[in-house]
Amino acid sequence: MPRVPAGLWKNVIAVQVYGANTGVGKTVFSTILGAHFLKKTGRTNWKLRYVKPVSTGPASEADDGYVKKYAGVPVSTLFQYSEAVSPHIAARDGKPPSDGSVIWALHQYLNNESGRLNRVEREMGINIVETAGGPLSPGPSGTPQVDLFRPLRLPVVLVGDHRLGGISSTISAAESLILRGYDINAVVCFNDNGKYKNSEYLLQHFDKWNIAAFELPWIPDLEGCTTTEETKLMRDYYKEQSRIDSVHRVAERIISCHSQRLEELESMGARTQKAIWHPFTQHKSLLDKDDILVFDSAYGDYFQTKYNKKSRLGSDATDAMLYPAFDGSASWWTQGLGHGNPQLALAAAHAAGRYGHVMFAGATHEPAITLAERLLKGMKNYRLTKCFFTDDGSTAAEVGIKMALRASCKRYEWDGSSEDVGILGLKGSYHGDTIGAMDASEPCVYNKKVDWYRGRGYWLDFPSVKMKKGRWVIEAPTGMEEEFGPAEYFDSLTDIFDVKKRAHSPRYEQYITSTLDRLVKKQGRKFGALVMEPVLLGAGGMLFVDPLFQRTLVQVVRSYQFAELAPLPSSNAWTGLPVMFDEVFTGLYRLGHFSAASLLDTCPDISIHAKLLTGGLLPLSATLASSSIFQAFYGDDKADALLHGHSYTAHPIGCHVANISLQTMDSLNMSAQTWSGFRKDWRDNHGETKLTINPFRTTSGDHRVWSFWSKRMVVDLSHHPRVDHVIAIGSVLAISLKDQSGSGYTSNAAAGLRDALLYEALPGETRIHSRVLGNVIYFMASMTAGPGFLRDVEKALLRHLGGPPHPVFKRVELGNDSEQGQEIERSAEENVEQRREGAD
Amino acid sequence: MPRVPAGLWKNVIAVQVYGANTGVGKTVFSTILGAHFLKKTGRTNWKLRYVKPVSTGPASEADDGYVKKYAGVPVSTLFQYSEAVSPHIAARDGKPPSDGSVIWALHQYLNNESGRLNRVEREMGINIVETAGGPLSPGPSGTPQVDLFRPLRLPVVLVGDHRLGGISSTISAAESLILRGYDINAVVCFNDNGKYKNSEYLLQHFDKWNIAAFELPWIPDLEGCTTTEETKLMRDYYKEQSRIDSVHRVAERIISCHSQRLEELESMGARTQKAIWHPFTQHKSLLDKDDILVFDSAYGDYFQTKYNKKSRLGSDATDAMLYPAFDGSASWWTQGLGHGNPQLALAAAHAAGRYGHVMFAGATHEPAITLAERLLKGMKNYRLTKCFFTDDGSTAAEVGIKMALRASCKRYEWDGSSEDVGILGLKGSYHGDTIGAMDASEPCVYNKKVDWYRGRGYWLDFPSVKMKKGRWVIEAPTGMEEEFGPAEYFDSLTDIFDVKKRAHSPRYEQYITSTLDRLVKKQGRKFGALVMEPVLLGAGGMLFVDPLFQRTLVQVVRSYQFAELAPLPSSNAWTGLPVMFDEVFTGLYRLGHFSAASLLDTCPDISIHAKLLTGGLLPLSATLASSSIFQAFYGDDKADALLHGHSYTAHPIGCHVANISLQTMDSLNMSAQTWSGFRKDWRDNHGETKLTINPFRTTSGDHRVWSFWSKRMVVDLSHHPRVDHVIAIGSVLAISLKDQSGSGYTSNAAAGLRDALLYEALPGETRIHSRVLGNVIYFMASMTAGPGFLRDVEKALLRHLGGPPHPVFKRVELGNDSEQGQEIERSAEENVEQRREGAD
Repeated sequence: MPRVPAGLWKNVIAVQVYGANTGVGKTVFSTILGAHFLKKTGRTNWKLRYVKPVSTGPASEADDGYVKKYAGVPVSTLFQYSEAVSPHIAARDGKPPSDGSVIWALHQYLNNESGRLNRVEREMGINIVETAGGPLSPGPSGTPQVDLFRPLRLPVVLVGDHRLGGISSTISAAESLILRGYDINAVVCFNDNGKYKNSEYLLQHFDKWNIAAFELPWIPDLEGCTTTEETKLMRDYYKEQSRIDSVHRVAERIISCHSQRLEELESMGARTQKAIWHPFTQHKSLLDKDDILVFDSAYGDYFQTKYNKKSRLGSDATDAMLYPAFDGSASWWTQGLGHGNPQLALAAAHAAGRYGHVMFAGATHEPAITLAERLLKGMKNYRLTKCFFTDDGSTAAEVGIKMALRASCKRYEWDGSSEDVGILGLKGSYHGDTIGAMDASEPCVYNKKVDWYRGRGYWLDFPSVKMKKGRWVIEAPTGMEEEFGPAEYFDSLTDIFDVKKRAHSPRYEQYITSTLDRLVKKQGRKFGALVMEPVLLGAGGMLFVDPLFQRTLVQVVRSYQFAELAPLPSSNAWTGLPVMFDEVFTGLYRLGHFSAASLLDTCPDISIHAKLLTGGLLPLSATLASSSIFQAFYGDDKADALLHGHSYTAHPIGCHVANISLQTMDSLNMSAQTWSGFRKDWRDNHGETKLTINPFRTTSGDHRVWSFWSKRMVVDLSHHPRVDHVIAIGSVLAISLKDQSGSGYTSNAAAGLRDALLYEALPGETRIHSRVLGNVIYFMASMTAGPGFLRDVEKALLRHLGGPPHPVFKRVELGNDSEQGQEIERSAEENVEQRREGAD
Repeated sequence: MPRVPAGLWKNVIAVQVYGANTGVGKTVFSTILGAHFLKKTGRTNWKLRYVKPVSTGPASEADDGYVKKYAGVPVSTLFQYSEAVSPHIAARDGKPPSDGSVIWALHQYLNNESGRLNRVEREMGINIVETAGGPLSPGPSGTPQVDLFRPLRLPVVLVGDHRLGGISSTISAAESLILRGYDINAVVCFNDNGKYKNSEYLLQHFDKWNIAAFELPWIPDLEGCTTTEETKLMRDYYKEQSRIDSVHRVAERIISCHSQRLEELESMGARTQKAIWHPFTQHKSLLDKDDILVFDSAYGDYFQTKYNKKSRLGSDATDAMLYPAFDGSASWWTQGLGHGNPQLALAAAHAAGRYGHVMFAGATHEPAITLAERLLKGMKNYRLTKCFFTDDGSTAAEVGIKMALRASCKRYEWDGSSEDVGILGLKGSYHGDTIGAMDASEPCVYNKKVDWYRGRGYWLDFPSVKMKKGRWVIEAPTGMEEEFGPAEYFDSLTDIFDVKKRAHSPRYEQYITSTLDRLVKKQGRKFGALVMEPVLLGAGGMLFVDPLFQRTLVQVVRSYQFAELAPLPSSNAWTGLPVMFDEVFTGLYRLGHFSAASLLDTCPDISIHAKLLTGGLLPLSATLASSSIFQAFYGDDKADALLHGHSYTAHPIGCHVANISLQTMDSLNMSAQTWSGFRKDWRDNHGETKLTINPFRTTSGDHRVWSFWSKRMVVDLSHHPRVDHVIAIGSVLAISLKDQSGSGYTSNAAAGLRDALLYEALPGETRIHSRVLGNVIYFMASMTAGPGFLRDVEKALLRHLGGPPHPVFKRVELGNDSEQGQEIERSAEENVEQRREGAD
């Protein structure tokens, strides 16, 4: 997706005129509106321009002449085709311009005007941007115009259809615009002198929806007129129109929507400071209203962010209000298929239109059952047979923990309500913010001032995976070298994940068994579950656990005797303790695979999922469980059941969006092309050996590990003097910066880099919004991110890291890039290409 | 909204043909399709019918003649207008038929065929339902056709537009259908012999969205033909078409979609039993697949529910698959503006298209800030200044509790991590299913087998409000008469809520103070918050607390000294303990007022909201807090902050839908008409004295209490021999049935009534889906429910209760209503009228 700023300037209004259909009077309306602005007097002089991004056929010349004749202003055409057909047909003969080129050209056209006007007082630009056909008529590349122009998100005037059937086509056109996130400033409709009375109906209809609608007087009947008569009639008409009230009101509406949007953006920081209590935020660090990032909208991998005094530094001479910033945290790890994705928007609307929400206890609906089956099948875990829905990762964790504890307390005949039954986990794990989920994590900064927090369990140390100075290494934490052995080096991540080949580790077994013996046999402690995030502990600081350690831990726990009189379980039943994997962050392709558990070749008894489940749209979560867990709640007494359930359990909108998201991600995964470049990059040994095996052999479910981030850059980063180590897997890249003051959530080592990435961009450079966890700065993109886009991010990242380059470390030269459009356009095109591959 | 079943029969296929616009060849397509079905041979004989629910103009006669001429079958027209304009204009002269009449007429037309064919083997009906204009062209009442016909939710074939601009209008039309929850079986488009190539584009486009699309050969050019030539040309064309592959494939597609839908409905019960773990459900009670209710869709206040062996009893002789059941629990108390509400669907889509989700820590977006301000303002509580978003009622409660505990532990210098700091609450309260929310509730059936549950606090007894034998009474719980005094009788609910007039209650003060003295002074227990649901304890069994008791409790707690050395607070700061109100169920108009706290004339320091917040669409919740609470987290240390935050915090879709929902409910509240009938009913004394005051005086924010349920029926119910007592307030009606075995969640007293209401309806009677809480059965409707609809529900309820009538108790006679259409239509019309009032 092109990294184009949304089209909003202080001193330039750009309004995009869509017609509900062809032949509805778009040009007549544009002419009337322009004529009105030319005539307008007052404090502001209006510089009127007409621009047609794409124009086809000689007829359009006539249109352009027409506008010039009656409004007195020429029409600029950015891409012209001679054949009078849809642009996607007309453009077929040559190589059609990419979507990126079209909207960059339009953006530059508008932006230059802002640069010019910025130096002139009392002048404002009004740009009437004409479209061709209806909102979904294809542009040159074939992309519907509404989608093509969406990154600019210009305010829209929709010209209604006055003809028979025009009520329907006008409302439908409006709905297509609305569901793509456009602001419709006004709907205008010509009064057809009472024949079909569409305008009357449409005014009422849009009023109900709080959309301003206006009626314009009927266009003169020109049948049988000579050219001279026609010119006279129309000149009179336009003269008349530019004076009448409804045109005045449309113009005022456009101006006031513009000012309101500016005012809203300006005031949002202060309003937010006043009324909003932010999650995970020390408000004392947000003393200035400019400390609050104001998002106008989002598209693809970008936030459209309001400039503030920090980001304004180094921006160009225009009055542009918004800039695109790469959503480097994937909106807290949720985003997967691009912001403002019209297919997901329509999916949400469809389920809302078919159901709204329906009560789920003892009931069912198609999206929920389909999703449950899809998840259970996708996990390829023979144990998992049941799906319990809740709302977020934390509630999914609560449910999973309730399930596991009940199962073990029941089998071991413990009274959980009076005895302390804890969980086993890993240090640095985190499962959510509700008390039950918190209690499953060791004491840490997140919970230390939560009054009801009581850590209930024991959390083990573990060896972790890092790339250091170009080599993958598995290292013990400081002081644990004896238990876990010396650092072990590997050629590739795939070798590290080849847990079957690495076979068993007596040291790991010994450490785990002796720990359990101490806790259970010596201290008499009771444990009801093993709970952990497979592969990557996210909130704990992107800790990459040795997969063999996690696999060994599961094996040992499953064969360990946690109580004296444990009855023998049936086949497929859990043994030792129920094993629960928290895949909220790591699952559903975040690490490049449907299930993170599959990377460990391990089948947990309980598995929890959220975040990417809905592709980055809205909350929904699922707790999957085995039959042996389910049986613990099965009985004659209602009180034996799992008496848990949120009101919106399995809400159809979330389930349907999740189905479409998973289906889309599954096809990205199965497609031979989409991720093949990334996979190939990571199959080569450090990018240096040539590929010798079939590049399409990789299928879902194997243990090959790869990343969206280039291996070259990961290696380079690992050599950087400021960097302690790096990890990359799937879409996740995390950089641990060296920090003298000691690492941890409260470290500030990475905050400076984070701010520089957002605020101190060179012209043409990608701005990056990122989140840090103490000394760790991390990045992740959506599943549809193309290589061009990712390389731009990498470039910016490497430049900002700066410092003296290591011999291996190649500093990327960006140069004094005055041709930013060119540069960006190239990568924009790449992205569009890439995206289309993904979409097909 | 009309109580019409969705249109699905085993042996009758009804497919609705929409055109992307007028003049796209709808009639030609219908003729081709019909001709094909007539020709089709095989196991099934197809009985072909054409029906045009609404037809205008003499032209339509020609259309009808046309179909008869070429397909050999006449067209049935249900409502005919002579003028060739949109039906809403044509119908203006007379009284236009209501939406209810139109779809009831269409339903009957299709249903009768099912009744007939049910008795014939090897015959199936294929009904081609024609529409006029485009999908959003208005019907006779002015309602767009897509909305008018939505309750039937017939499968759709959309005829695309082959003309210039037709790509856009076709996709837009499809989007308008999709966002209203329709299934599009097929899009068909005539190939225009390569002129615009719309069909080529559309086939590709819809393929990406998994919608089947088909190209049909071009219609012969009839220009200059004589009638005889035209007839011959067209006959040849139709003969040809009925044989060609694409028509065959469209027909097969329609048949296979029908069979798939039937199969899906048949299999969903078993699939659900296999894969779904239901919330709050003992699965041993769902042994039969027919124990699972299968919802095809929902509309207004109705679920479209699949018949099973229980509900099939007493249904008519057709093969109808679905019946509408009143969603009596408002889908677990969430539903407020009707299922399948297109305005909310479009709102969800708009926010999805504009943002998707955007990370909210230190950032902001328009829907979130607007919603925060709207909630804070709507509460009319001078203390509340900050809004913290989470995902559901339970997480909102966790956040509220964390806030309150931190504030009190900080002020009183308690170490919450090592000392036991509990909450004060009421017996029977419930705040959610996560451990923190559970711990704030007393031990009960919900948490007794939750191993990590530890009730942390003390829960007080309270006197409750009931209607018994026609009189409102405040009663102490058994054994507490001494503390709370003898039963006290009131003329009206409004008198009970006149807490200022009732002034203070020394008995209540005495009970509360002595309880606190015992706990705090004698036992040395620590409390960090008062947490309660104002007015109505929902999950605890719809317990209606005496408002004066809750008000007194707040007053006493606020002046009580909970610790020795409490520093003096500033003004507006909390005193004693922070007071948290859980309005998740009771707030946002569920009880007829924006805030339930306002009914107590009390300003809590923390207030939590969910359920109706999003009008019944998707999860979102808010915890509102005072500045004095906020200050407890303000400091130099990040660890002092409220380190809580779910990934989808303040997701724009939820916030935008909430804004539209609250705006809509606010206007229902402010409208002079919408709820005036209900308010008037409850202002009269037991419906017996005449209204003497201005009926429009009631405005939001006063303490007048009213209900959607008729006072007459509430009184009648309270006299019923099976009923112990009744309560009604806002949209909630709860009936406590007499139960010898003792009441409580595990009681089965109400289950029989619940099953009868759903399964044992008389012909024409409203079926009701309800939930019970032990011996309590309760009902609530959406905020847009009309009186006609509610009276139908009341009738069904009274008939099912049965038993010997009390002198006051008027048994409603339903009669042997063979004219069910008539009866239902009347109330359907009423509802439509009422709804439109609400919508305007």
